[in-house]
Amino acid sequence: MVAMIGSGNVAYHLSRALNGKTEVRMVNPRTLEGLPGKPDIILIAVTDTAIREVAEKLKGTEALVAHTSGSIGLEALNGISSHIGVFYPLQTFTKGIDPDYSEIPILIEGSDPETSEKLKSLAHLFTARIEDADSEKRRKLHLAAVFACNFTNALAGISRDILAESGIDFSLLLPLMKQTVKKLEILTPKEAQTGPAVRGDRQVIESHLAMLESKPEAKEIYAKISHLISSKSSKP
Amino acid sequence: MVAMIGSGNVAYHLSRALNGKTEVRMVNPRTLEGLPGKPDIILIAVTDTAIREVAEKLKGTEALVAHTSGSIGLEALNGISSHIGVFYPLQTFTKGIDPDYSEIPILIEGSDPETSEKLKSLAHLFTARIEDADSEKRRKLHLAAVFACNFTNALAGISRDILAESGIDFSLLLPLMKQTVKKLEILTPKEAQTGPAVRGDRQVIESHLAMLESKPEAKEIYAKISHLISSKSSKP
Repeated sequence: MVAMIGSGNVAYHLSRALNGKTEVRMVNPRTLEGLPGKPDIILIAVTDTAIREVAEKLKGTEALVAHTSGSIGLEALNGISSHIGVFYPLQTFTKGIDPDYSEIPILIEGSDPETSEKLKSLAHLFTARIEDADSEKRRKLHLAAVFACNFTNALAGISRDILAESGIDFSLLLPLMKQTVKKLEILTPKEAQTGPAVRGDRQVIESHLAMLESKPEAKEIYAKISHLISSKSSKP
Repeated sequence: MVAMIGSGNVAYHLSRALNGKTEVRMVNPRTLEGLPGKPDIILIAVTDTAIREVAEKLKGTEALVAHTSGSIGLEALNGISSHIGVFYPLQTFTKGIDPDYSEIPILIEGSDPETSEKLKSLAHLFTARIEDADSEKRRKLHLAAVFACNFTNALAGISRDILAESGIDFSLLLPLMKQTVKKLEILTPKEAQTGPAVRGDRQVIESHLAMLESKPEAKEIYAKISHLISSKSSKP
């Protein structure tokens, strides 16, 4: 039996992913209401800053205890149980929008091989994409995810602002964004790169910069990323 | 009958989209080999700089003549035919990777209402997403698409570089990128924004900037986009 401590998006979606595949009990992170007597695994799916506080309350448990954070080390759980681990889902979670659970990568770290294996078996209940990852690997993945997810979303925000001024519907861009990601299943980003910067089309770039005159931050970002693209494409 | 002039990705994919729905003849853009005697519509699907040269060879045709470019005005076809237009597919095309043709937005401009209607009917054969768009609207969409497509791909390139150094497989990020786009079907980019910048998590941001010490361009882009996100999230 899995005890899922948390009330946020990660707890919600991990419990949905496991729903019908193993017994999951939702546990209130403040009161620990709902915590069963003898859980096999306790997942602490709370914000980074609350992990230690929740863990302290579990001290001495016989269960395997793991947290679900990409940026917190395994050592945050030191002394809580003799079997501690990390069960990090590399996904952006929002309530009401279900991802395809079967393709979420789960990054696993365990204090011992048996713990790792148990966490992997848990992940296997809903996904086939499971990898070992120590703190360093999780840190790198988290940084890469900021570019690929958080910053991609911010660029979409710039696009939306540009279109909204002229009353143009942002959703026109969604098929293009979907395809941009789909291409990366087959091509490297360098191979997949299109647009004025990689073509060295100065005329289009200058006209775009002029259109961004009233948006100094977007204009700077346009110039920086265009420069990055053209400097990369000129290298072998 | 549609004559599709071009040998690149746009010509290839538009002809695939129309395949089995109307008769399409592929026409060599240099020799015009393949051009039928009396086509109803001629689509000039060549690079921006070649449009005028190809158009000149068609002067006096009775067919409707349209180009497929987002950044070239309708006037590039002035004097070629009495019915000229633009048929702009807002999509990134790569040979061998088929997008879902039924959701490609087609932006239409015609020299007269009858021309617009004919081009819309052609688009309707494969997609339901059809809008009128003059040069100004196409220019805005093109700029927005550079952020949403070309720059998103460039950010994925940064992610890939970060991971490659440690031998971590970039494809771990693809489910996350897919979901980032999927969320935008339901939420605005501002609502969908997650990550350290929108949370104001200076500790994570500083540690990420330190990890990017050896990548000055990526580091500057990280700082600029993080600043944009935090300044936007602090506004009502």
